[in-house]
Amino acid sequence: MMLLENTDVNKSQWEDLHTYIDNDEMEPFRDEFLSMHPYDQSLFFEKQQEYVRQHIYTYLSPNETADIMEHIELVDIKPFITEMDPRFAAMVIGEMATDDAVDILNELDKDVVVSLLTMMDAKDADEIKELLHYEEKTAGSIMTTEFVAVHQTKTVKDTMNFLKAEAPDAETIYYLYVIDADKHLVGVVSLRDLIVAEEDVRISDVMNENVFAVSVGKDQEEVSQMMRDYDFLALPVVDFQHHLLGIITFDDILDVMDEEATDDYSKLAGVTDTDRPQDGAFAAAKKRLPWLVILSFLGMLTASLINQFEKTLDQMAVLAIFIPLIAGMSGNTGTQALAVAVRGLATGNFSKEGKWKLILREASTGMITGAVCGTVITAIVYVWQGDFFLGLLVGVSIMATLIVATLSGALVPIFMDKLQIDPAVASGPFITTINDIISILIYFGLATAFMQLLI
Amino acid sequence: MMLLENTDVNKSQWEDLHTYIDNDEMEPFRDEFLSMHPYDQSLFFEKQQEYVRQHIYTYLSPNETADIMEHIELVDIKPFITEMDPRFAAMVIGEMATDDAVDILNELDKDVVVSLLTMMDAKDADEIKELLHYEEKTAGSIMTTEFVAVHQTKTVKDTMNFLKAEAPDAETIYYLYVIDADKHLVGVVSLRDLIVAEEDVRISDVMNENVFAVSVGKDQEEVSQMMRDYDFLALPVVDFQHHLLGIITFDDILDVMDEEATDDYSKLAGVTDTDRPQDGAFAAAKKRLPWLVILSFLGMLTASLINQFEKTLDQMAVLAIFIPLIAGMSGNTGTQALAVAVRGLATGNFSKEGKWKLILREASTGMITGAVCGTVITAIVYVWQGDFFLGLLVGVSIMATLIVATLSGALVPIFMDKLQIDPAVASGPFITTINDIISILIYFGLATAFMQLLI
Repeated sequence: MMLLENTDVNKSQWEDLHTYIDNDEMEPFRDEFLSMHPYDQSLFFEKQQEYVRQHIYTYLSPNETADIMEHIELVDIKPFITEMDPRFAAMVIGEMATDDAVDILNELDKDVVVSLLTMMDAKDADEIKELLHYEEKTAGSIMTTEFVAVHQTKTVKDTMNFLKAEAPDAETIYYLYVIDADKHLVGVVSLRDLIVAEEDVRISDVMNENVFAVSVGKDQEEVSQMMRDYDFLALPVVDFQHHLLGIITFDDILDVMDEEATDDYSKLAGVTDTDRPQDGAFAAAKKRLPWLVILSFLGMLTASLINQFEKTLDQMAVLAIFIPLIAGMSGNTGTQALAVAVRGLATGNFSKEGKWKLILREASTGMITGAVCGTVITAIVYVWQGDFFLGLLVGVSIMATLIVATLSGALVPIFMDKLQIDPAVASGPFITTINDIISILIYFGLATAFMQLLI
Repeated sequence: MMLLENTDVNKSQWEDLHTYIDNDEMEPFRDEFLSMHPYDQSLFFEKQQEYVRQHIYTYLSPNETADIMEHIELVDIKPFITEMDPRFAAMVIGEMATDDAVDILNELDKDVVVSLLTMMDAKDADEIKELLHYEEKTAGSIMTTEFVAVHQTKTVKDTMNFLKAEAPDAETIYYLYVIDADKHLVGVVSLRDLIVAEEDVRISDVMNENVFAVSVGKDQEEVSQMMRDYDFLALPVVDFQHHLLGIITFDDILDVMDEEATDDYSKLAGVTDTDRPQDGAFAAAKKRLPWLVILSFLGMLTASLINQFEKTLDQMAVLAIFIPLIAGMSGNTGTQALAVAVRGLATGNFSKEGKWKLILREASTGMITGAVCGTVITAIVYVWQGDFFLGLLVGVSIMATLIVATLSGALVPIFMDKLQIDPAVASGPFITTINDIISILIYFGLATAFMQLLI
């Protein structure tokens, strides 16, 4: 038994492996390396220099190499495939699960893909080509074609024997999909049911006819949500005539979930495309600049707004010192409200009344936080500046901006959702800048209106 | 076959169900209702008024009700359990998977739990009590005790027969854990391997001795990460003497992932505890106020900083109008950098060199974005205000603040991680306020230093 303590590597094991490679001892290397879990193999593999990896390619079979590749993150895989001998690379990809193979090919340049496919076993290549057609981020693009389908007229015993032959190749054997003579999906039977059933019963008598499926063009995020809601380990994919095309398994959904969570998180932070620590500075700057440039222009708008209140500001320069406080508070409360609304819209289940309820709630929340913060700030400014009306002006401005900003944090994503725009696009920076403008208008508006009390 | 189109409810089906309840027709209701997937059942169930649900409780068995409960979100479940007849509630919880039952009991008041446990079947109660001991958010708290363990001396045929009896109750039968005479975990065998194996072979000859396990006190987030890295469908949990205590299955990990993603997202938005759309306004205000009050004080610090530059500001009131622009840009670039660093630290695999590389990269990214935005802003301000030196001052301030703010967005979470504080605590509002202060210092510092050029 091996206790998973942490993801630290086994140092002495790595040293052994290095010694075997340095002495070009293939058999001891294979014994040690293949005793490791493929994920641990991938950790070792990724940390090596190219000449070491070239040794590893000669020591391992395409199938053993494919196991490693399946545990490497997709964004990191391109250099490994391209440094392999093309014929070997083609065999490695041919040995992988079809959906994983397609994911990798999507990372490579088009001419490389074409040459790899021509070098591949024709059957593997055909399966891959079929999947390559499906649009990115649809059910078709994440499904695998390595599923087990049984004909409804077969018996339990026939099916178990058939399974014994198919088990090593299929992506999952725990659900068997039942088809009729025209390959329409008509039912599902779990291996659990098969084991409990009598041997001479027909599949059509033990199968569950209420089999759920998704159509091949369905968005992957919706598929992921459905699989979690219904607790499916696997979900069949069909075309518009209900022919069974493939299945989506649990591990595919995990990747989708990770992708979507990182995506939402990045958008809240105002990064247009997912920014990864391993990208270079230019790539990172390119992803962040669109927002920053837009915000420069919006910031100019704020500046020109304050400029409208030049006279007020000239008479009372002290007003300027509270600008960051007021703008900052409104931006922060807006982001807080935004996060709740976006997350709520993303996980679905928001009825029409639910949206009204949320808007009402955010208005109330804004009033409570506004009253508390407004009072605190009035008191501090009064004590500090010794001017009650100034304190009241700043406090009331905070209260008013907190109410409006909290409300806008909920309204903007709901409105975007209504316009069928992904509400996660209403990111932190966007709502912050809108709320900057609103808060400046309220603050200087109030100051100008009540000027006579302040000087 | 049923095509999953969207999560919209089947209206005519709901109408039928309502008619049956109104006429108190139990059998037609059961036929229709039980033909639905438990998740769809839960959607209907949750939307009903209490008197309708009381009808449903009388129509369904505890086991059928348990299926519905397992599809309801944990945070929503308390009112349903408390409105049931206590004896019925005890039976419902007794029928659930042990880990789900424990999750529900953790949501209820302590005296309710005690009375439910006394009314429950003694064996179920004992299993639940055992799990209730484990600390929240550990492997022990999410594992189930309904796993299949086989003795290593058994044959494949014995095991298959044993499985036929156990299959209906176990949480998963796709992995069987192999134990020795003292209940130590010694191996694992998949159902797939069993099916392919000869009938009279011993389990010890087909099992994989390289079975991975986690200790019962392990943090749930680390367990979730490991299961994803290694692609495990289930993972055994052991005590410090390597006795097998339970297993963690895939669906448990999905919940953990959802929880952690929402948690990180909320923290970036500056909400201390996870804020949910269905909470009331007071609950929401309570969660947001801590941050807002802290930010009020930090905002005061910013205000007093600007106050130090009173003389500069009096001489050049126009400086005030660019405060929101500069503070806003620095806050946004900081949040962008923060998101990358926090996400990178959260998903692990950040070596020491990796951190230095990230810091270096963020410095370079800050220089690139700073140069671009600084140039754009210098030009705009020059054209707008007709003052080249003012344009240069604002532009250079933007450039300097973007570099420092981007760098601080990476440094703060890395520093927190070093101090063993969860880097996600370094949320958007926190970094924004720090960067407000830095940017104000740079802007007014430069303005004061080069005052003679500006007037």
